[in-house]
Amino acid sequence: MTPADASAIAEETLARLERAWNAGDGTAFGVAFADDADFVDIRGGRHRGRDAVAAGHQALFDTLYAGSTVRYQLETARMITPGSLVAIAGAALDTPAGPAAGISHARLTAVLTPDDEAWSVAVFHNTRVASDA
Amino acid sequence: MTPADASAIAEETLARLERAWNAGDGTAFGVAFADDADFVDIRGGRHRGRDAVAAGHQALFDTLYAGSTVRYQLETARMITPGSLVAIAGAALDTPAGPAAGISHARLTAVLTPDDEAWSVAVFHNTRVASDA
Repeated sequence: MTPADASAIAEETLARLERAWNAGDGTAFGVAFADDADFVDIRGGRHRGRDAVAAGHQALFDTLYAGSTVRYQLETARMITPGSLVAIAGAALDTPAGPAAGISHARLTAVLTPDDEAWSVAVFHNTRVASDA
Repeated sequence: MTPADASAIAEETLARLERAWNAGDGTAFGVAFADDADFVDIRGGRHRGRDAVAAGHQALFDTLYAGSTVRYQLETARMITPGSLVAIAGAALDTPAGPAAGISHARLTAVLTPDDEAWSVAVFHNTRVASDA
């Protein structure tokens, strides 16, 4: 796989996540994940498996992040072994109202693995970027 | 590889990192990483490659985290593909003095890949656990 191929796969996955987030659709967000995915969120909380990722995001889309839009910016995509693609991306989240109102920035690492015909997110870890960083 | 083998490899890597941290030895901390490792820290900052990880940690060991001790607690270790081992662990950091004084908690994801005879950290991502989480 060429570096361009790896970037294209990562971009496609980020675009799926972005569309799902911006539609407030937790189920669609979860579909990008492997059934047994490991997820660590910006508060350091753990979520295990596609269904937990979907439900956790739906709860946020319905409350704290209602009406929010996210924009991912791929920074790096590379194969670390055959079948393991690592993507690192920035995320800008714009929330219209409530306690999280405003724009916040995060950086994520995702590990994608082949799942039948497509690539799925097997591992996802997210960290808020410090405001003075 | 059995789940017990994966856990043993992850535990060994965490023990190396723990010993290096507690000795305040940035170079020894960096040795556990692959030459081209990707690292995202708890402030969302990026560090690329073993040398940057070593230098960045030495700077912290000499200042903000001087005299600190870390203790890792492995939560999960699993192979996501042949040759890619994912470890998720909690970290408790005890800093004796200065602006970071006290105990703080974080959660990390590390992806280990075989590097010659040993396993190296190819990807590392760390998030502070929210105090009310």
